[in-house]
Amino acid sequence: MTEPRIKSSSGFYITKEAPIEAANALPTPTNPAPDILRCAYMDLVVTDLAASREFYVDVLGLHVTEEDDEAIYLRSTEEFIHHNLVLRKGPVAAVAAFSYRVRTPGDLDKAVAFYTELGCRVERRPEGFTKGIGDSVRVEDPLGFPYEFFYQTEHVERLSWRYDLQTPGELVRLDHFNQVTPDVPRAVRHYQDLGFRVTEDIQDEDGVVYAAWMRRKPTVHDTAATGGDGPRMHHVAFATHEKHNILAICDKLGALRRSDAIERGPGRHGVSNAFYLYLRDPDGHRVEIYTQDYYTGDPDNPVITWDVHDNQRRDWWGNPVVPSWYTEASLVLDLDGKPQPVVARTDASEMAVTIGADGFSYTKDETDASSLPSWKMGEYKLGHQL
Amino acid sequence: MTEPRIKSSSGFYITKEAPIEAANALPTPTNPAPDILRCAYMDLVVTDLAASREFYVDVLGLHVTEEDDEAIYLRSTEEFIHHNLVLRKGPVAAVAAFSYRVRTPGDLDKAVAFYTELGCRVERRPEGFTKGIGDSVRVEDPLGFPYEFFYQTEHVERLSWRYDLQTPGELVRLDHFNQVTPDVPRAVRHYQDLGFRVTEDIQDEDGVVYAAWMRRKPTVHDTAATGGDGPRMHHVAFATHEKHNILAICDKLGALRRSDAIERGPGRHGVSNAFYLYLRDPDGHRVEIYTQDYYTGDPDNPVITWDVHDNQRRDWWGNPVVPSWYTEASLVLDLDGKPQPVVARTDASEMAVTIGADGFSYTKDETDASSLPSWKMGEYKLGHQL
Amino acid sequence: MTEPRIKSSSGFYITKEAPIEAANALPTPTNPAPDILRCAYMDLVVTDLAASREFYVDVLGLHVTEEDDEAIYLRSTEEFIHHNLVLRKGPVAAVAAFSYRVRTPGDLDKAVAFYTELGCRVERRPEGFTKGIGDSVRVEDPLGFPYEFFYQTEHVERLSWRYDLQTPGELVRLDHFNQVTPDVPRAVRHYQDLGFRVTEDIQDEDGVVYAAWMRRKPTVHDTAATGGDGPRMHHVAFATHEKHNILAICDKLGALRRSDAIERGPGRHGVSNAFYLYLRDPDGHRVEIYTQDYYTGDPDNPVITWDVHDNQRRDWWGNPVVPSWYTEASLVLDLDGKPQPVVARTDASEMAVTIGADGFSYTKDETDASSLPSWKMGEYKLGHQL
Amino acid sequence: MTEPRIKSSSGFYITKEAPIEAANALPTPTNPAPDILRCAYMDLVVTDLAASREFYVDVLGLHVTEEDDEAIYLRSTEEFIHHNLVLRKGPVAAVAAFSYRVRTPGDLDKAVAFYTELGCRVERRPEGFTKGIGDSVRVEDPLGFPYEFFYQTEHVERLSWRYDLQTPGELVRLDHFNQVTPDVPRAVRHYQDLGFRVTEDIQDEDGVVYAAWMRRKPTVHDTAATGGDGPRMHHVAFATHEKHNILAICDKLGALRRSDAIERGPGRHGVSNAFYLYLRDPDGHRVEIYTQDYYTGDPDNPVITWDVHDNQRRDWWGNPVVPSWYTEASLVLDLDGKPQPVVARTDASEMAVTIGADGFSYTKDETDASSLPSWKMGEYKLGHQL
Repeated sequence: MTEPRIKSSSGFYITKEAPIEAANALPTPTNPAPDILRCAYMDLVVTDLAASREFYVDVLGLHVTEEDDEAIYLRSTEEFIHHNLVLRKGPVAAVAAFSYRVRTPGDLDKAVAFYTELGCRVERRPEGFTKGIGDSVRVEDPLGFPYEFFYQTEHVERLSWRYDLQTPGELVRLDHFNQVTPDVPRAVRHYQDLGFRVTEDIQDEDGVVYAAWMRRKPTVHDTAATGGDGPRMHHVAFATHEKHNILAICDKLGALRRSDAIERGPGRHGVSNAFYLYLRDPDGHRVEIYTQDYYTGDPDNPVITWDVHDNQRRDWWGNPVVPSWYTEASLVLDLDGKPQPVVARTDASEMAVTIGADGFSYTKDETDASSLPSWKMGEYKLGHQL
Repeated sequence: MTEPRIKSSSGFYITKEAPIEAANALPTPTNPAPDILRCAYMDLVVTDLAASREFYVDVLGLHVTEEDDEAIYLRSTEEFIHHNLVLRKGPVAAVAAFSYRVRTPGDLDKAVAFYTELGCRVERRPEGFTKGIGDSVRVEDPLGFPYEFFYQTEHVERLSWRYDLQTPGELVRLDHFNQVTPDVPRAVRHYQDLGFRVTEDIQDEDGVVYAAWMRRKPTVHDTAATGGDGPRMHHVAFATHEKHNILAICDKLGALRRSDAIERGPGRHGVSNAFYLYLRDPDGHRVEIYTQDYYTGDPDNPVITWDVHDNQRRDWWGNPVVPSWYTEASLVLDLDGKPQPVVARTDASEMAVTIGADGFSYTKDETDASSLPSWKMGEYKLGHQL
Repeated sequence: MTEPRIKSSSGFYITKEAPIEAANALPTPTNPAPDILRCAYMDLVVTDLAASREFYVDVLGLHVTEEDDEAIYLRSTEEFIHHNLVLRKGPVAAVAAFSYRVRTPGDLDKAVAFYTELGCRVERRPEGFTKGIGDSVRVEDPLGFPYEFFYQTEHVERLSWRYDLQTPGELVRLDHFNQVTPDVPRAVRHYQDLGFRVTEDIQDEDGVVYAAWMRRKPTVHDTAATGGDGPRMHHVAFATHEKHNILAICDKLGALRRSDAIERGPGRHGVSNAFYLYLRDPDGHRVEIYTQDYYTGDPDNPVITWDVHDNQRRDWWGNPVVPSWYTEASLVLDLDGKPQPVVARTDASEMAVTIGADGFSYTKDETDASSLPSWKMGEYKLGHQL
Repeated sequence: MTEPRIKSSSGFYITKEAPIEAANALPTPTNPAPDILRCAYMDLVVTDLAASREFYVDVLGLHVTEEDDEAIYLRSTEEFIHHNLVLRKGPVAAVAAFSYRVRTPGDLDKAVAFYTELGCRVERRPEGFTKGIGDSVRVEDPLGFPYEFFYQTEHVERLSWRYDLQTPGELVRLDHFNQVTPDVPRAVRHYQDLGFRVTEDIQDEDGVVYAAWMRRKPTVHDTAATGGDGPRMHHVAFATHEKHNILAICDKLGALRRSDAIERGPGRHGVSNAFYLYLRDPDGHRVEIYTQDYYTGDPDNPVITWDVHDNQRRDWWGNPVVPSWYTEASLVLDLDGKPQPVVARTDASEMAVTIGADGFSYTKDETDASSLPSWKMGEYKLGHQL
């Protein structure tokens, strides 16, 4: 990192540009990238449609726009496009597409040219790949992720004023995706070429990058790259209005005796400053419930770098990250619907450097881990999970 | 209105384009408009700097970036630019500037050309008009409002993680401005030329437009045009994270025996769906506290039109709008610091058509006002205020 | 008031004993009063059972314990006795009973003796007056109110852990009753004889008492005496856990286009320090939603007296009390089911002394009302209601 | 357990009387017990008064009634007695007294007789043991705990209306104590003799009792008996109004880089249904922050028994209990100020039967632990703590 960085009074570092350099970067296409508005929906393959419907509709309260025997089209309260989540019946639980909305119909031509130049497989369907969505481009991106771009969509009613339909844990917005990939700097550089801007990342003192958050819309992210064996999908996140909405989801899962769907949290993130909860759906797909990050829309929005050893980076309250959160993720599909092979990460693992026999972390930077009180070991027993 | 409109299940109307036509439109400049990011700060003249400091710092908890005997520079928790509000000592309480941040330094040249073509008075100061802000352009816009544009600013620390500094009513963001102007369609058309997009408006059955909300950043608004005698400033709004933060401000004002600073609310807006509170500062400048509107960043974001007679348009709970809220507003200054003359509105007044002897409103559209229960007269006694 | 009183830093007065003397007191019975635990349920006559069911069950979310063509038995989330509210079909909207639970079955004998000595009409039914309640005593109390006492009841499941059944505005507890009666000191003295203790009251500088709050369980009240034409029922109150639950009820009423059910609030009470909302049911019966008063269980709990002219006594934020709130109330029935005649209050009216031509109020005690800002007239136009 | 018990739809069991029998019961005194109102304050010995002041006043926001070089007297917002917590400088961190307020001055005579009959050491001081408290009785109770009883106290101002003094994590009330004792049934039986009533407990299929909650005021508890090596103090608990207040405390600890003070939570209890957080003060004394349990004041309030293997009993969301929470606790002092010796529990340990090599737990009762998903091992690595 050549740019000087400033240490904030909250313990992280601030720079003007994302201090990430990719040793192994993909070429930057000469064709311009499509103008992405925002993450729009995830096309999710589930093995038991009824079980998934119960989870996303009956428990989480997403609104059904349309459904048939093969697929269910769901949206959050605020949404006016056809859906934010497709549950599609299939033999292997996986992600069929991370779908982004673009600014104009013409951006689809740009998407075709951009990925074609990168040598990626590209498929365009004027009638769309799912109900409610028109002309669309799907690609196997250079990192192996199935990305979709579209503009045309059926408009449906925004339900924000329909408080009569709302539940205590109402999900109001699709907030972001999170992707697992072995080489984070390579992924960041590629997504920067696609027009994303880094807002926060986690690094160590040697410049190893463990994760990075990237945005199009002016929130902390539309997607993030998490270091690990990939390509895999780490999670899809929906936003609520307030923190008590997230607590209400936990309470309801307890009442249904489904508290085992709670994987991690609720808690306050260091990264993003948002309040969070991680759930696992009936197939093990991870869903985050998220609220209250910050505006990032200015082009000189300060970039935040967290030290991987800062015990508050992942949970501002220092509560431990459960190992499954680091190690488990969903497969992603190629355009033929077959799972992409998973490539192992070779850089250091965040879990290894922070928990377990070789890991350490601190709460104050002058404090070494050995002085932590007995109740703050900051980790789980790995043997139980791995 | 020639475009067909759809009535939503919540009682308002939805169109694709703002159904507003200006009979008396200003010419659209051939020079391109500057690319505005967002409303950034208000330069506010106050008559008693100590009294204003007590209100904005001690009561509302805004953070002081810098201050001297003449001015105080305040920011909200999330902000990384130098300030969101300048309190400047002066002889007449008024607004010296509605200031917007633009995307690049080059947008200032565009601003100069855009307003010069419109025949407006334009002043550029490379060193800025206030501390912490660099090269800036100020104009007397065609509607008489003092508008400022800038890109350069000192970065300061974003305090989102500094929960040790936060109060129960923490203000996290500058959300929007609101301007009073006699001819709303004329104002809307002009601000559309400047790059704003309408998100919601209030009209009657004859197409009279009473108010319109317009955005650059993807919230419901960066500014709004409220029909009335103008140019005047209706209010400046700050956002909190949650609704209880707004209630905490009311509770604190009660504890300080300053509940008379509460003008209207708290309540839920129909327009914007946000939770709100209106306060009056020691000079009578109106400040809104606001939380939880919705994402509007897609170019085809549905435009919402409310019927002026819908009793839930201004308050979703049907609570009455106090007359002062319609009639009182702050003066705005020209570039010499002299108050702009106020021109009377000639179109129908929202207050007149909804409250008082000639007004009516309904809760359900099949219900006429005469059937309202005794506790829902929907108005205040006008004689006490006018 | 002979006892010295201390002015608190919040503007009200503190004494050790309720500073209320009744010029016209009822005799204190020599027979001991029954040991009342708490207000337990209201037996409410409604004219349209379906409309009332929709209001209390579909809108407010009370849980149905049992129902038939004549009556519906409802309870709040926390309740383990059979019901907190009976909706009973009848020709005239009125209250059939204010029902209190007593500590032991033997307290019913005490109730019979206590009221018999007072010369009241008393009726005892071993099988109870409503489903789910056993041996009960009903009386026409000396102030004309139908009071019930019981111990035996069917236990039903407490639903506190059933978050899967809960709504955003969940009502967790019956909190209190409120009775309108012409002579407040006389009522207070009588209810003190029955074992109630005053927690707060409102008086003027001449010692006129406008209202008083009285408790058995250690909250601010199980019932209150509000000065006015009576005997009538002012309201029945249910508690929520948090303030956002109350806001959610307002939002839902808006969504259902039933915002005209909102009579007053939401707001923060001065008296009781609770957060509140007043609704009117389809028959006009007033229901309060209430949260977060304080513990009053110590025998020397300080008694609070508010000045009737303190503008923050009824609403801590100084928002006006709608006149209907002062003037409208429900009839109460005698033991034959016929409405009790209403006797006019002769003492000063709180509405008259605080709003309208002759009233005044202050926010700070050194401030006279004429200096209030234009937006704080502190009143509604009386002509619209009376 | 001879009484039939009903399984609730939430998974726990309901009985009318606490199903606890003590094999080794203390004799029931023939002298009547004092009439206890509520837990009133804890007299806590701390080793570094400045560090403790920073924790309880600067971080947690308790209000200082009075202080000197030796002790600090703190109260919560709602309190009108002199204090709820005394921080007293001393050589060994420990509890000097669990102090209860009684209904009348005469109850002190009863306390003397009651404990004298039990053969306990009793000391009465007419001038009180701490500032602000008058005539008091302290005893070494039969289980080794230092109990205090008093009625006389200086009244101080209840600060509930002083929102200007309140913090985002405002503590409004002292809620309860929690005591560690080897033989829970023996403790329960003794405290029942003292007038406490059981509200909930945790048992296994053999009737081993792991913990029991007991109340005087009508909440879930004024104190609890937790099975373990004792006598020791498990925690002292303060209540907030809402859940976000508890989250705000966590956020503030993070901002101060003191997140290592968070031991367990925040979460939702199964037992009590309250929302909770456990902190450790600078001496390791455990403090719970607690909100929203339920009313228990009726004499036939249903008693709830949780299965020790129910994974949601301690945390309704199934989040693991950190081992230190089971094993660590504070010493208690005798009346000479010397630590009481700690006696080991011989009954089964809750930690052993639920976590670690021999423990098991279930989420649904038909589910055995081996089917738990990877992220729900339900335990921490014991080796790190023990």
